[in-house]
Amino acid sequence: MWALRVMAGRPGRGGVQAAAAAVGVARRGMAATQAAEGYKYETLAVTKPRKHVYLVKINRPEKLNAMNLVFWREIGQCFDQLGDDTSCRAVVLGAEGRVFTAGIDLMDLASIGAAAEGGDGADVARRGRVIHKAIRDFQNSFSALERCPKPVVAAVHNACVGGGVDLVCGADIRYCSSDAWFQVKEVDVGLAADVGTLQRLPKVVGGQSLARELVFTARKMFSAEALQCGFISRIFESKERLEEGALELAATIASKSPVAVQTSKIALIHSRDHSVEEGLDYMAKLNMLMLQSEDVRIAAMAMMSKGENKAIFSKL
Amino acid sequence: MWALRVMAGRPGRGGVQAAAAAVGVARRGMAATQAAEGYKYETLAVTKPRKHVYLVKINRPEKLNAMNLVFWREIGQCFDQLGDDTSCRAVVLGAEGRVFTAGIDLMDLASIGAAAEGGDGADVARRGRVIHKAIRDFQNSFSALERCPKPVVAAVHNACVGGGVDLVCGADIRYCSSDAWFQVKEVDVGLAADVGTLQRLPKVVGGQSLARELVFTARKMFSAEALQCGFISRIFESKERLEEGALELAATIASKSPVAVQTSKIALIHSRDHSVEEGLDYMAKLNMLMLQSEDVRIAAMAMMSKGENKAIFSKL
Amino acid sequence: MWALRVMAGRPGRGGVQAAAAAVGVARRGMAATQAAEGYKYETLAVTKPRKHVYLVKINRPEKLNAMNLVFWREIGQCFDQLGDDTSCRAVVLGAEGRVFTAGIDLMDLASIGAAAEGGDGADVARRGRVIHKAIRDFQNSFSALERCPKPVVAAVHNACVGGGVDLVCGADIRYCSSDAWFQVKEVDVGLAADVGTLQRLPKVVGGQSLARELVFTARKMFSAEALQCGFISRIFESKERLEEGALELAATIASKSPVAVQTSKIALIHSRDHSVEEGLDYMAKLNMLMLQSEDVRIAAMAMMSKGENKAIFSKL
Amino acid sequence: MWALRVMAGRPGRGGVQAAAAAVGVARRGMAATQAAEGYKYETLAVTKPRKHVYLVKINRPEKLNAMNLVFWREIGQCFDQLGDDTSCRAVVLGAEGRVFTAGIDLMDLASIGAAAEGGDGADVARRGRVIHKAIRDFQNSFSALERCPKPVVAAVHNACVGGGVDLVCGADIRYCSSDAWFQVKEVDVGLAADVGTLQRLPKVVGGQSLARELVFTARKMFSAEALQCGFISRIFESKERLEEGALELAATIASKSPVAVQTSKIALIHSRDHSVEEGLDYMAKLNMLMLQSEDVRIAAMAMMSKGENKAIFSKL
Amino acid sequence: MWALRVMAGRPGRGGVQAAAAAVGVARRGMAATQAAEGYKYETLAVTKPRKHVYLVKINRPEKLNAMNLVFWREIGQCFDQLGDDTSCRAVVLGAEGRVFTAGIDLMDLASIGAAAEGGDGADVARRGRVIHKAIRDFQNSFSALERCPKPVVAAVHNACVGGGVDLVCGADIRYCSSDAWFQVKEVDVGLAADVGTLQRLPKVVGGQSLARELVFTARKMFSAEALQCGFISRIFESKERLEEGALELAATIASKSPVAVQTSKIALIHSRDHSVEEGLDYMAKLNMLMLQSEDVRIAAMAMMSKGENKAIFSKL
Amino acid sequence: MWALRVMAGRPGRGGVQAAAAAVGVARRGMAATQAAEGYKYETLAVTKPRKHVYLVKINRPEKLNAMNLVFWREIGQCFDQLGDDTSCRAVVLGAEGRVFTAGIDLMDLASIGAAAEGGDGADVARRGRVIHKAIRDFQNSFSALERCPKPVVAAVHNACVGGGVDLVCGADIRYCSSDAWFQVKEVDVGLAADVGTLQRLPKVVGGQSLARELVFTARKMFSAEALQCGFISRIFESKERLEEGALELAATIASKSPVAVQTSKIALIHSRDHSVEEGLDYMAKLNMLMLQSEDVRIAAMAMMSKGENKAIFSKL
Repeated sequence: MWALRVMAGRPGRGGVQAAAAAVGVARRGMAATQAAEGYKYETLAVTKPRKHVYLVKINRPEKLNAMNLVFWREIGQCFDQLGDDTSCRAVVLGAEGRVFTAGIDLMDLASIGAAAEGGDGADVARRGRVIHKAIRDFQNSFSALERCPKPVVAAVHNACVGGGVDLVCGADIRYCSSDAWFQVKEVDVGLAADVGTLQRLPKVVGGQSLARELVFTARKMFSAEALQCGFISRIFESKERLEEGALELAATIASKSPVAVQTSKIALIHSRDHSVEEGLDYMAKLNMLMLQSEDVRIAAMAMMSKGENKAIFSKL
Repeated sequence: MWALRVMAGRPGRGGVQAAAAAVGVARRGMAATQAAEGYKYETLAVTKPRKHVYLVKINRPEKLNAMNLVFWREIGQCFDQLGDDTSCRAVVLGAEGRVFTAGIDLMDLASIGAAAEGGDGADVARRGRVIHKAIRDFQNSFSALERCPKPVVAAVHNACVGGGVDLVCGADIRYCSSDAWFQVKEVDVGLAADVGTLQRLPKVVGGQSLARELVFTARKMFSAEALQCGFISRIFESKERLEEGALELAATIASKSPVAVQTSKIALIHSRDHSVEEGLDYMAKLNMLMLQSEDVRIAAMAMMSKGENKAIFSKL
Repeated sequence: MWALRVMAGRPGRGGVQAAAAAVGVARRGMAATQAAEGYKYETLAVTKPRKHVYLVKINRPEKLNAMNLVFWREIGQCFDQLGDDTSCRAVVLGAEGRVFTAGIDLMDLASIGAAAEGGDGADVARRGRVIHKAIRDFQNSFSALERCPKPVVAAVHNACVGGGVDLVCGADIRYCSSDAWFQVKEVDVGLAADVGTLQRLPKVVGGQSLARELVFTARKMFSAEALQCGFISRIFESKERLEEGALELAATIASKSPVAVQTSKIALIHSRDHSVEEGLDYMAKLNMLMLQSEDVRIAAMAMMSKGENKAIFSKL
Repeated sequence: MWALRVMAGRPGRGGVQAAAAAVGVARRGMAATQAAEGYKYETLAVTKPRKHVYLVKINRPEKLNAMNLVFWREIGQCFDQLGDDTSCRAVVLGAEGRVFTAGIDLMDLASIGAAAEGGDGADVARRGRVIHKAIRDFQNSFSALERCPKPVVAAVHNACVGGGVDLVCGADIRYCSSDAWFQVKEVDVGLAADVGTLQRLPKVVGGQSLARELVFTARKMFSAEALQCGFISRIFESKERLEEGALELAATIASKSPVAVQTSKIALIHSRDHSVEEGLDYMAKLNMLMLQSEDVRIAAMAMMSKGENKAIFSKL
Repeated sequence: MWALRVMAGRPGRGGVQAAAAAVGVARRGMAATQAAEGYKYETLAVTKPRKHVYLVKINRPEKLNAMNLVFWREIGQCFDQLGDDTSCRAVVLGAEGRVFTAGIDLMDLASIGAAAEGGDGADVARRGRVIHKAIRDFQNSFSALERCPKPVVAAVHNACVGGGVDLVCGADIRYCSSDAWFQVKEVDVGLAADVGTLQRLPKVVGGQSLARELVFTARKMFSAEALQCGFISRIFESKERLEEGALELAATIASKSPVAVQTSKIALIHSRDHSVEEGLDYMAKLNMLMLQSEDVRIAAMAMMSKGENKAIFSKL
Repeated sequence: MWALRVMAGRPGRGGVQAAAAAVGVARRGMAATQAAEGYKYETLAVTKPRKHVYLVKINRPEKLNAMNLVFWREIGQCFDQLGDDTSCRAVVLGAEGRVFTAGIDLMDLASIGAAAEGGDGADVARRGRVIHKAIRDFQNSFSALERCPKPVVAAVHNACVGGGVDLVCGADIRYCSSDAWFQVKEVDVGLAADVGTLQRLPKVVGGQSLARELVFTARKMFSAEALQCGFISRIFESKERLEEGALELAATIASKSPVAVQTSKIALIHSRDHSVEEGLDYMAKLNMLMLQSEDVRIAAMAMMSKGENKAIFSKL
């Protein structure tokens, strides 16, 4: 966490300074669809552009989508809400404006530091407790992407810095535009990433070497390298095409049995963290219920009809 | 599991419908070698084409090698038998006919459903118990590939659907022909894969992104992509070359010390499921016996002779 | 372990026999810098070519850097010393001479065998105990690369055989020259690798298929394949460029906050061996102290100055 | 969970029916102290009878303290609040009225059943999801006793049934009056306990035999047996003495360094769920901060003064 | 395992030599009930003395119930059969004759040794493999008591030696007669117990000190000490009373909802081997199905009727 | 750790102040036997009073056996030496003088504090690193009791405070004299115990309630309570009888097969920290070697001879 708003840096080709100016234009994408009912957030724009598909966008473009305290709280609430919302079957996570996110908002973060200080000369153990609570809260927010049983597709364009990498590591699948770049910025600000990158990045890319290099050097990884190492599944030529592609993928997922898809996500996350034998046992426990679902019959009948009848599944 | 026989689909280039017709031709491969002694199975053809190397082929080509209840039982029995057979040092797992397998045989599977129903209106908990037992039995069958300490090389051609992916995820190394394609078909039938894919696939390819996409969308992955992501180690231009190549690899493995090779397999599977420190301790416990084996001396002497004397190892 | 000095083999293009002759030339690289103070080893040459960066070289070129008993002891001592040395922030691990290492020195190893024998006819359980202790000692030596909280960059040229692969699997990042090749030689000597390869290799490359093939066949993997599978992060055209490149990377890492970098390494290794949730909890516990470090302030101020003031961190 | 309000049963000697009548008298205990500021709950009465010590009482005596939906929500909120409240160093958990608790309130619970049903004929998988969410919410509520780093002393009198056992299993120390009895009632209502008893009870009493007998038979365990098996640490002759004794213990704990006590609780819970080696590593990570606390110096100086100066610790 | 038939020893007060003579008398207990249908075993006598309750007795009284190879196979088969038999809800495990069991039958065991030897001078690694298979088979047999989801009550009288302790450690609850004694005999025969005692005994009694003393010294533990440490739950004055008491307990368990009881056993065993948090998650997964069972309604209605209507549950 | 020398306290009946004076007398016990060859320690007196049995005594009676830095280093070295010493089969751990130990020596400990401070105003992260290293070193010293595969019997008399409890928790079996008392003193000095008590104590006594009370309150536990909760296995009326009893137990253990006993200890410690299934697999791996030991034959033959021939085992 704590990755800096990279105002002093030069993210992407053109620089994020220029990016802020372009915010007005970037908003066009969202105008097309109405805000999803019941999803009112200050730092997030939530729409429902396809059936059963929600699009969540980080929405502080004038601040380069820097993550402030409100964002930290809202991102967790939003994905917990989506997890419980039976009209939602898949989610795309994107961002308004020219960059995906410049990472944590240093200005806002100062307040945590101040809280940790308490009166002057506060004890290190007591300051530690305040810091600990802040970190756990932030971690819980980002882990909401995994708690949410509906698949999450991250759609990243341009700069994705610091906390942004932590965030998209929690998604199930990552797409990006060709101008995207990723930076595990934390060591440049004197700290070890603590809201998910160190835990999830090596498991997402499936190897240690690259992950450690990115973490220790804070160097940028551009889209081509991200694709090759498996961090990104697909590159699109523009932000528009990216959004389109991510929604298309989400719509495909949303057309499947929600019982099958969501049970699969739950089992995949469990399996990542357990031995194969434990994963198999857990799976058998889940499916002794799930295989009794009507979705099995509905899906089988649709398949038998060779496409004539489309499977219609109940909400979940 | 439960992946459908894709009768309604269009697997491979030419389609599996056409495939069934071509079965007669496909049998040629097996005619060349005699069935291995003591390996009598209804749904499997087992031969021993090389010294210490067994070739196990799924053998229901007229049914597109769909997995029926007999197959589920036999595949586990066969690999348990191979694991205990000291004349076996490596196994190739292939299939007769035009496709590797169309996945689970829906017709046969209906019988489990019927059993779970019991009398009409049976209690959900009791139905769940019947389903649970069936899943655990199926899982145990496929896990026999891992219990067997001899390396297993899967040789996949054309369609490998649903349960077929679960099956080859249990192999140690995967080769395929260029026309091969893989499909985690389960969500299309309204269920979450439950005999190994969700547990082993991400650990085989070493990353989460691609695995999740394949699972959630049920899309086909063709041989080129399978090679690039590490699921497949090598592609061959034809089914014949594939079989030849897989046997060659198996023969190479079979020429090594069986103590060394089998201890390595046991340790690799243990390590996949444990921390590095636990893996090291386990390894030390295994080798305090294995390093006393005569194989160490035999191998060392062969090496000293610079190839003049070939190492001859006892059975294991 | 126990990989043979491949005197009978034909490693690399030109063969390691020729390599021994070229030792005199290869020494040039080391002459340039003085031995680092306090690092006196018989089988290792330790220098400090960059600020906060140590270069450790295996230094038995006339023996093809075969690993003898002295080496096994010293490599562990050296990395434990570097771990405690607050003037060290990153380490490059290379080798003198034409090859990186031919693996374990069989001649020296005979002594362990002799010890295990004890008097003639010693009991197998008692011999097992002697062997067990030797393995654990060797494992502990190589694990020193992970215990050392400073990042370790392995720089491998030409042959890296048997124990050499175990060794570099313990490094954080691996670079190599284009003539490098790797061989998990152990099964050829009748034993299962037991000092780290079976535990770490699949987690380094992030997949099981290739790792198992390399282990079961003892075939060579050349630099291009090593790059593609993620075992190697970058290839250099020559040994000299390799060393330069590795030192450059180490110097970059050494310029960052040591609190941030070393805490990151500790967390990455912990996360590899635990579930994501456990990793997050551990991280929060580490950072409730580390975020109180002066490094955070120092790094932030340097960043604010847009490069005018360079961050100067205290020793760690 | 789901343990029935035992209206039909005959808990304790006199029966819980009689108990409800006696509620008025039982309230006397609470009247003595004022409600703690900021702790307003409908089903809980929270006071602060000693310095740094909070007393939380289940407060539905007229309903035999049956656990309704409001209680399930509030008990979690209350302990999370106490965990964050730096004026709190230890908590006593008791109950108003004649019985500790009759367990879950069946009347209220019907609403969950209704929600799970949804429209008539809802799919089993979808009903399962609703049930799953309810269970996880209930579990999270009771786990708040463990999340709270301040020690919790349960003070149990008379009947402690079903959910009541789950609840007190989450406490650190259990005291009771001589008329107390415990009943893992769940199998009598056709279900397996799912909010903590099956997980924590065997670890609290440290053995499997007794725990399994209590679970499988739903028989009552009276105070003497509870003491002997270690479930209860101390028995008091009356409810009043019990409350006094529990507060005394809590006050003793509250007089100690909060850094020491709360770090100990965090480490004890971690150790229960991990290997000794992992526990030691975790402990070392915690204490590299905590040993820098001023509490160490303050406590040491108080000790040196041989009781003349009492240690005064800051809030935590 | 491998505990010796203690022919040379002096078990119990009177000695086991005398015991063999008394076999005729001891058989009386079994004559009372008929062998349960479908349960034909050479070394086990299986009856069904109460509704839904099976009584399994070790039945080689003339050999002091020493465990021979047939027994090792049958005990596993029998409990696997009971686990699948829906007419069984609880099991009592006792023994015919004067002693419970004298442990492993050394005479029969010689055959394994012979098999391990193979031809003369067989390799240690290959002998190890044969031994390993035997141990795993024996372990799997005894683990059948845990795989069986129906509670198992062991009823032990007189001598319970070596393998007998391994066996009863796998039961859920242990009762004994006052003349019972237990002996972890293995070190006296030069080996470490390997079929369950070392793994389960400390978790059954909940502490390490006593378990280690019993294991290291092979001393006898008599019934009183066994009761006090929690190994035994209840002592009866005679073998007859013991059997009666154990059957009574089993009958009580069998009168409860089988869904509730068996789910509880599955969860208790899982929880013993996992962290509390993992146990809670697993429990929630089980109960999202089980709470939909008709047993909940049936049990609740019986309870509401205040005993007028008895709950009648379907088979499981 | 860090438990204070309880100079201000009043340990035992008579007080430890008086104890120091009585040192001369207490030395008598040791005079009887000569120091064991090769065991020269400043703070430990090591003798070999019985065949294969070593007696290690804390030997700073004039300082109430307070643990200073030399002791911390030596206790680990001594048990590592005993672990490797094939003439040792069991160890008794006692103490010279009137008390077992007053815990950590505060005077000496100040030096670590000073080191952590470094120059004035050293960074908290850097001080944390120094503290971390000290804790890990201390932990490693005490863990030597578990690394040593020979059983360790602690014989405790009078005061056993702070670090003393951490120490004896690492022993296999604990005996004490009737005047013994135990105190987890750490919270009284403002810190959480960090060298083993929090990790091992609950697993030794098998329950959480008592352990937590002892930790949170720092109250004394006298011998009777220690016996009842299973912390202590046996109480003796005097220090002399205690030593005699502990040596007797150790001698009994030393008379058994060292292969059997030491393999048992290794398996018991592994099982404590793993699931039952993992423990069984590990055990099978150990015994595929150990059952080939000559000890099995030697022990069996001795047993057959009905005590006429005593088993004589080789060193281990």
